[in-house]
Amino acid sequence: MDLINKERLWGTINDLATITMEDQPWTRRSFTAKYNEGREWLMKQMRDSGLEVEIDEGSNVIGRLIGTEPNLPPIVIGSHTDTVPNGGRFDGIAGVLAGLEIVRAIKENDIPVKHTIEVVDFTSEEPSEYGLSTVGSRAWSGNLTEEMLSYTNPAGQTLSEAIAYAGGNPSHIKNCKKEKGSIALYLELHIEQGPVLLRNNASLGVVTGIVGIQRYKVTVDGLPNHSGTTPMNMRNDALTAASEMTLALESVANGKFDQPVVGTVGVFNNFPNASNVVPGKVEFAVEIRSISEKAIDEVGSEFLSKVEEIALKREVKIKTENVSRSGAIVISNEIKQLLKESCSSITEKVIELPSGAGHDANQMSLLAPVGMIFIPCKDGRSHCPEEWAEKEDFYFGAKAMLQAVLAFSK
Amino acid sequence: MDLINKERLWGTINDLATITMEDQPWTRRSFTAKYNEGREWLMKQMRDSGLEVEIDEGSNVIGRLIGTEPNLPPIVIGSHTDTVPNGGRFDGIAGVLAGLEIVRAIKENDIPVKHTIEVVDFTSEEPSEYGLSTVGSRAWSGNLTEEMLSYTNPAGQTLSEAIAYAGGNPSHIKNCKKEKGSIALYLELHIEQGPVLLRNNASLGVVTGIVGIQRYKVTVDGLPNHSGTTPMNMRNDALTAASEMTLALESVANGKFDQPVVGTVGVFNNFPNASNVVPGKVEFAVEIRSISEKAIDEVGSEFLSKVEEIALKREVKIKTENVSRSGAIVISNEIKQLLKESCSSITEKVIELPSGAGHDANQMSLLAPVGMIFIPCKDGRSHCPEEWAEKEDFYFGAKAMLQAVLAFSK
Repeated sequence: MDLINKERLWGTINDLATITMEDQPWTRRSFTAKYNEGREWLMKQMRDSGLEVEIDEGSNVIGRLIGTEPNLPPIVIGSHTDTVPNGGRFDGIAGVLAGLEIVRAIKENDIPVKHTIEVVDFTSEEPSEYGLSTVGSRAWSGNLTEEMLSYTNPAGQTLSEAIAYAGGNPSHIKNCKKEKGSIALYLELHIEQGPVLLRNNASLGVVTGIVGIQRYKVTVDGLPNHSGTTPMNMRNDALTAASEMTLALESVANGKFDQPVVGTVGVFNNFPNASNVVPGKVEFAVEIRSISEKAIDEVGSEFLSKVEEIALKREVKIKTENVSRSGAIVISNEIKQLLKESCSSITEKVIELPSGAGHDANQMSLLAPVGMIFIPCKDGRSHCPEEWAEKEDFYFGAKAMLQAVLAFSK
Repeated sequence: MDLINKERLWGTINDLATITMEDQPWTRRSFTAKYNEGREWLMKQMRDSGLEVEIDEGSNVIGRLIGTEPNLPPIVIGSHTDTVPNGGRFDGIAGVLAGLEIVRAIKENDIPVKHTIEVVDFTSEEPSEYGLSTVGSRAWSGNLTEEMLSYTNPAGQTLSEAIAYAGGNPSHIKNCKKEKGSIALYLELHIEQGPVLLRNNASLGVVTGIVGIQRYKVTVDGLPNHSGTTPMNMRNDALTAASEMTLALESVANGKFDQPVVGTVGVFNNFPNASNVVPGKVEFAVEIRSISEKAIDEVGSEFLSKVEEIALKREVKIKTENVSRSGAIVISNEIKQLLKESCSSITEKVIELPSGAGHDANQMSLLAPVGMIFIPCKDGRSHCPEEWAEKEDFYFGAKAMLQAVLAFSK
């Protein structure tokens, strides 16, 4: 029995993907008129499908299908409809519209489901102009503070004003905070945003966890000398030192740990950056990600000790700043098993993989068991106009998630 | 017999060093009112010392002491009085004022010298706002083209207008071009601008040549992927590739060659330079300097082949551009010997060393035998407000140069 309507799912994805800014196709920044337009469209789809529709205090859009046992805590299926600047078609909306397709399938086939199902478009998941991401799911988890509500965009408007513009009620934001245990299960479908499914020729990925992130800033201070008049053996070159440190991070992250780790130098600024001056200073930003906190710690401390060694050897000064640490989220064996079985009932091409990027699931993990399904995206690329995923894979993903909902709610 | 007046030399250096811009002490940019003010002061000193004074078509300031055999080609002692932005006290003026002190000593002691001696303040030796350096000595060597005269500063004025403002006559610039052989000897005293004399505990340096410079631009194209979702073994990281290339240059330049070589990556730009994006592109500038053209070629080709190797291994694309090549200037054994003997008659602490930076001597080498004497500067630093050299070393340098003039003109 084919409950999921492949063409309808693909159609709704394309309908919403094209409600976008004129100068940036596929871009729908949070708290803009286009964002509101897309959500109006979404709410109409929800109403037409017979869902109860609500915008809560955090301006989250919720479409509710009441279960046969309405007193049970709900299953929430969610993601977001905002995009990064110059973004792509699918990041975010795929998860919301898979949720919509699932409740449509349940409703039109009169399948009795015990749990109420809420399809949620969480407010502003991507980093917004207010310097914050996962705004709506933070409102649910209680991680949206008064201070954050006073953050301003470059035009001077507050996040609070922005949430009101999106239909929320920021002065009563606490009313939408959920208690731990008040949600039975949170599910999210998302494009992978990486190359792992593709390279493994897999159609569906069961997410094992969401990586924790350790960020450092390293400043290397050498001596900015004349490149012509300073012999090689009399230099304190900040750039060659920083280059060696960059390679050290790569080499450390390539080591063996209990879980895969990535180590990245993404930001790298050289001073004075003149062709005839031996670089006097380099500042670079380091990021270490893994779903194993232990692996993050090991890579971090091994990297920092290499940095010290290199600085000593090359006679440069270093300053290392611990910028931030966000904890890893490990998905429970129970939920992994649930999703693995439902995915495997659809296709043989299923693998497990960690999520290297953050999602609304990060906040939701504070409230409920969470599970995520990834589908492949072309060349592993996202957050760009070239972002692409296949109709067939959306269909597989939605089918697997419906299967999981039915199995969970049995 | 102490011909050089140490205190007078030090005094004139300090007098001119303080004719500077109010917001940037020790800075006297070419073609500004302060530049003209400094040169007026210089011409007054020259006239008061009984020299014939002239500003030629290239706005070079010349003070002339006629020799006892006026038909002989002149000995020219020169340097410049302009500075870089945020410059130092001595770079340039030391050579001009040592020349002035030398002719003062000759004149007041009635020493018969066969050759006419010209003390020259060459126009705008440092890179000017018109995108050109060694303007005045280029006018002499014939390397100041019509095209260069039409170069403009950010305000839209032409170099031609600037030369006129400095007292030159750019429409007759060819009149000041000299023929090869029309100058008997060119001498220049300069602060070293590097740490070699200091580290060798030397007071005077006889310059063996001026380095040639090979410049390359290297562009590394990788893939700008999400730092969280792209495993280490699926990356095409432009930054780690460029880091390895930077270290390869250092390692190659540290090899054994017939003459010392320096290899520098001074400019290094990373894109998109975001903490959560594996770098997709790096552009960097490479400079290789040596007085041995052979060594430059060897380092260049070894570096380029390492770049190819690294790119192949790391699966990134590279583009290497040969930006420019300026030839090395080798100072003749005869002149080196002349200066070595005169320096050694003043102090035992004399070494030979190449000049890693360019000077007016580069252009003058096209017209005449050239010789240069270096004196140490504090911490090897120049082109900055901290630039410093000792009174005693200026005195030694001027004494040695006078000695060389007398020996040459015997």
